[in-house]
Amino acid sequence: MIVVMKRTATPEAVQQMARTVEEMGLKAHVIVGTERTVIAAVGDKRNGAKELLESYDDVEQVVPILAPYKVASLETKPEPTTIRTRGLVVGGGNIGVIAGPCSVESEEQILLAAEQVKAAGATGLRGGAFKPRTSPYAFQGMKEAGLKLLALAREKTGLAIVTEVMTPQHVELVAKYTDVLQIGARNMQNYHLLQAVGETRLPVLLKRGPSATIEEFLLAAEYILDQGNQQVMLCERGIRTFETHTRFTLPLATVAYLQERTHLPIVVDPSHGTGIASLVPSMCLAAVACGCDGLIIEVHPEPKKAMSDGAQSLTPAVFADTMARCRLVAAAVGKTIG
Amino acid sequence: MIVVMKRTATPEAVQQMARTVEEMGLKAHVIVGTERTVIAAVGDKRNGAKELLESYDDVEQVVPILAPYKVASLETKPEPTTIRTRGLVVGGGNIGVIAGPCSVESEEQILLAAEQVKAAGATGLRGGAFKPRTSPYAFQGMKEAGLKLLALAREKTGLAIVTEVMTPQHVELVAKYTDVLQIGARNMQNYHLLQAVGETRLPVLLKRGPSATIEEFLLAAEYILDQGNQQVMLCERGIRTFETHTRFTLPLATVAYLQERTHLPIVVDPSHGTGIASLVPSMCLAAVACGCDGLIIEVHPEPKKAMSDGAQSLTPAVFADTMARCRLVAAAVGKTIG
Amino acid sequence: MIVVMKRTATPEAVQQMARTVEEMGLKAHVIVGTERTVIAAVGDKRNGAKELLESYDDVEQVVPILAPYKVASLETKPEPTTIRTRGLVVGGGNIGVIAGPCSVESEEQILLAAEQVKAAGATGLRGGAFKPRTSPYAFQGMKEAGLKLLALAREKTGLAIVTEVMTPQHVELVAKYTDVLQIGARNMQNYHLLQAVGETRLPVLLKRGPSATIEEFLLAAEYILDQGNQQVMLCERGIRTFETHTRFTLPLATVAYLQERTHLPIVVDPSHGTGIASLVPSMCLAAVACGCDGLIIEVHPEPKKAMSDGAQSLTPAVFADTMARCRLVAAAVGKTIG
Amino acid sequence: MIVVMKRTATPEAVQQMARTVEEMGLKAHVIVGTERTVIAAVGDKRNGAKELLESYDDVEQVVPILAPYKVASLETKPEPTTIRTRGLVVGGGNIGVIAGPCSVESEEQILLAAEQVKAAGATGLRGGAFKPRTSPYAFQGMKEAGLKLLALAREKTGLAIVTEVMTPQHVELVAKYTDVLQIGARNMQNYHLLQAVGETRLPVLLKRGPSATIEEFLLAAEYILDQGNQQVMLCERGIRTFETHTRFTLPLATVAYLQERTHLPIVVDPSHGTGIASLVPSMCLAAVACGCDGLIIEVHPEPKKAMSDGAQSLTPAVFADTMARCRLVAAAVGKTIG
Repeated sequence: MIVVMKRTATPEAVQQMARTVEEMGLKAHVIVGTERTVIAAVGDKRNGAKELLESYDDVEQVVPILAPYKVASLETKPEPTTIRTRGLVVGGGNIGVIAGPCSVESEEQILLAAEQVKAAGATGLRGGAFKPRTSPYAFQGMKEAGLKLLALAREKTGLAIVTEVMTPQHVELVAKYTDVLQIGARNMQNYHLLQAVGETRLPVLLKRGPSATIEEFLLAAEYILDQGNQQVMLCERGIRTFETHTRFTLPLATVAYLQERTHLPIVVDPSHGTGIASLVPSMCLAAVACGCDGLIIEVHPEPKKAMSDGAQSLTPAVFADTMARCRLVAAAVGKTIG
Repeated sequence: MIVVMKRTATPEAVQQMARTVEEMGLKAHVIVGTERTVIAAVGDKRNGAKELLESYDDVEQVVPILAPYKVASLETKPEPTTIRTRGLVVGGGNIGVIAGPCSVESEEQILLAAEQVKAAGATGLRGGAFKPRTSPYAFQGMKEAGLKLLALAREKTGLAIVTEVMTPQHVELVAKYTDVLQIGARNMQNYHLLQAVGETRLPVLLKRGPSATIEEFLLAAEYILDQGNQQVMLCERGIRTFETHTRFTLPLATVAYLQERTHLPIVVDPSHGTGIASLVPSMCLAAVACGCDGLIIEVHPEPKKAMSDGAQSLTPAVFADTMARCRLVAAAVGKTIG
Repeated sequence: MIVVMKRTATPEAVQQMARTVEEMGLKAHVIVGTERTVIAAVGDKRNGAKELLESYDDVEQVVPILAPYKVASLETKPEPTTIRTRGLVVGGGNIGVIAGPCSVESEEQILLAAEQVKAAGATGLRGGAFKPRTSPYAFQGMKEAGLKLLALAREKTGLAIVTEVMTPQHVELVAKYTDVLQIGARNMQNYHLLQAVGETRLPVLLKRGPSATIEEFLLAAEYILDQGNQQVMLCERGIRTFETHTRFTLPLATVAYLQERTHLPIVVDPSHGTGIASLVPSMCLAAVACGCDGLIIEVHPEPKKAMSDGAQSLTPAVFADTMARCRLVAAAVGKTIG
Repeated sequence: MIVVMKRTATPEAVQQMARTVEEMGLKAHVIVGTERTVIAAVGDKRNGAKELLESYDDVEQVVPILAPYKVASLETKPEPTTIRTRGLVVGGGNIGVIAGPCSVESEEQILLAAEQVKAAGATGLRGGAFKPRTSPYAFQGMKEAGLKLLALAREKTGLAIVTEVMTPQHVELVAKYTDVLQIGARNMQNYHLLQAVGETRLPVLLKRGPSATIEEFLLAAEYILDQGNQQVMLCERGIRTFETHTRFTLPLATVAYLQERTHLPIVVDPSHGTGIASLVPSMCLAAVACGCDGLIIEVHPEPKKAMSDGAQSLTPAVFADTMARCRLVAAAVGKTIG
């Protein structure tokens, strides 16, 4: 950490602060500049020290040097992680495609959707059984009945199941039926839930919260990794900005930025990232081109009859066409997709 | 709802859409404009209809007319709600002041803090026993031991206790010790938790999520109200914007805007709203002047030794001075404070 | 426009408002709903009416139906516009590539840069002679001497020149030397400047302001188009959001969204959009894949010695490699590039 | 500056970088940490060095220590600046109130408005003659005729005139009629305009751009100060965030934050800051309470007939009432207002 002293700090104040730094178990180097004095505080102290030091009157700012995440870091594990479950492969040169409806609505709907996305080349099936909805008056999902239908769809198609779990008490139940546990964007900092999925040995798809920084995102992953579960996929699904013409703003630079820092694979969700079905295909192409390790896409047999997210769901025909175009782009960047 | 048809929509497409609207149980009025045709869809349908209609090719946009929240609405209950618990009164012309440390750290610390904030005029005591922390490696709170210390502080001072509950399983435990259940910003859309506190009969302090719209904030309150618990305080604690010089951006216009729409009392948190102790007093004054019903302020006997949030905690002396100045401003706007 | 009346509005107030609407030259249709009454105001009135009507006490909100831009609209001109100047072709199935240094620094530097980007396949040369800089103490550009060097580079290489003009008085001067007039992001709403470049017949590259909505962006273009200059390229260069790990957030969904609304070609600037050289290549690939009509990329013979924007400039070698990869992706989406 | 080396940087790379720092005329102190090595670069180098150093492969980040603004800084001039022109006093314990319509519309309108705001206690009159409008089809102001009406209103009432100048060519003309030159938010980084008003000796009201950081805001002021004009008022008028219920988000913490860093007086614009007339009075009270040096408020004799910004303009009656309430709050915080 670098402790920047105020211009008005006396030499005595600087010495006093250097002692404070040393009392925290760090080594203090005082550097007297032309306009400011700074103290370099050396040692492996990642938490708490910054805010403490900043509360001193003579301190102008404290600049951390170390990233606060560890296990997620490429420095800890330099080889990229690949997640494999049934036919779904996320990373290692393959772009895993998870597709399906926002919500499980009926046996007929989910089985039809599963067959359609499989035919187009997906290897994972998404579908919500427990649905976090902004309004208490909106459809909240089929719950366990929905999970059973997902398991049935898996039996019929061999697709890996990806479904959301909303609260720690449900982890055991959902884990019985799914291949991947999804943590929704609203729950990215629901720490008890993160710890609960960290205690399972199932792969986790962790969605970025709409106002989470990259550091907060990686620290949320760290909660899961810290419990011993190393199979975490990071999912960029759009952030909240001043833009209202799309549901969220999808910042694809996240993909390369994260790949420079973490070994965890990066999945992109262009459906939530835009909220508009007509924009989804081009954002799938963009995500493939810039190096994502997976895609999660909302596809519904009949979007106009969807009980949720109809406006951002692709029809099976558009999805099949998008997959064909993505295959060409994947080949152009030296990857496989499916 | 107003369904705006695309310029290219044929008269047949408009008629077809009008029938679709009627099939949804709404009444359709077609209005042919000079450049666009719109269909007014009349009836009380708050959820799902918008996104469904927007998925049709001929529809350009769908504009909702009704606010999606009901019980929280001033239209449902035109008289402002006042929350009273022990000496703490939030609303009804009084600005309730809740003060105390970020975390309960020890018996000595919390008892001293309680006496200090009481002496300065606070009627509520804040203090975290279960702490949601961005990093898994940071101090996570004293848990039940902390709750017991809060109860002890209440016994000694008579202050009403406000403390956070992070997960549904803890609601029963926390409710045993506290007067007000706090839902933190990260959990504003943790719906199982909202429902769990809605099932208690304790007042709830609901913090706004850092990227929540006003509508999402009121719908989160609606989850609690919908369970029959009418005692909800809405807390503005700052939003995430491009500004980095403060921890969050504190948008005080929220206070008056909400008061035009909801009967629930509005509390302001200038500590998290700025993240910088030296800015807290002036933002307390601003919040009092613009009509808030309560303040929640971090005060620590020794901020420099705080285990969390030291940089934004007031010293007892600064807090006492701030209270004195707030009393003058409260009087100037015809209110009492304490 | 749809005028939504407050729930408390009396039938008389509704009738009065309907008369007000008619006095504005619009036709009023009153629609009585179950909870609200709305008035559909029919007629071609794009400006001012909304804010006027919203100022009435009984009006809850006014919803505009027409987009406020006209000449830029795909409704006005359904065929996409292609910009051609010297060898640079932006649109019409070709992705025009404009590359070069942030600033013109010397004859040697700009000639070398021009040859290098040409060798890699660019057809446009960027380079700032008048530089808008955040600080008055930073390098402000070589001014007219820089323009002359750009013209020299054009003479030697045949590349089309793209350079910024900052103020109306300079338009005539800059126009003497350049092929494309660039309006920088800070000047997107400098209306006198927009009108001044609108009076020339040179193509204009209009950069999106960092907090401009899509509507504001198109209306800025409209200022140029309204003067009779139809050759406007829209450039997405990143928006300001809460993200700080990149210089700006690059929202690529802008490309497809704009293409659904305007005939003007869309250029992407991944250099400013990320601010980090190592992220630029992947964002170039993404922009090509999602359908952009042009790219503008900072390339410097020696980024470490650049007088501005060194951190986001590619080396000539990385640029050449990026172009090679972009050609593969362009082919995969059925386009040419260069 | 602190140059943080990558973990992978070799000792040789560190030495090489230290030499690079020294070649830039700075003194390099190498500090070897447990996980990272940093180089403290000591000397007064405010511009360019950061971005240059960051472009080196072995450098992870560069942290500036000095604020880049100088003349605006409280370190340069520790006494707060007070602006006085005619009866308008901004700063020095007085809150200067500038009120009036968005646009000058007619002699009758502006004279009436001037009398009304004066009667309520304002000492400055605002009114736009040159209007920057988002759409080229909107009313663009009365131009010089409007300036003459403002001068007439000054003659009749003695109020100080505050009006906007949009482009460098108009500075001389506008300066002939006004007491304060206003730079609008869209032009905060129109550097030629800033320099042009810096060359006059009139006070300048500089509005913050809607996505400007505090540092960019102070550097824009620095452009004016650097020309020798020391009379600059900084105006917080709201920033663009994800919030859409208000026109902008008004971050009042700006007031105290700036006062800790600059001697320039701070004016708040609650009209643009909220965009909603009913929210303006409470935000005026808040701004007064938190220590602003001035207020600029839109007041129109008949907001419903305003040619621009009617929705955010106060009626003269509401303005008079707001002023009365502000006087009470000003007294409570030990200030005068008017």
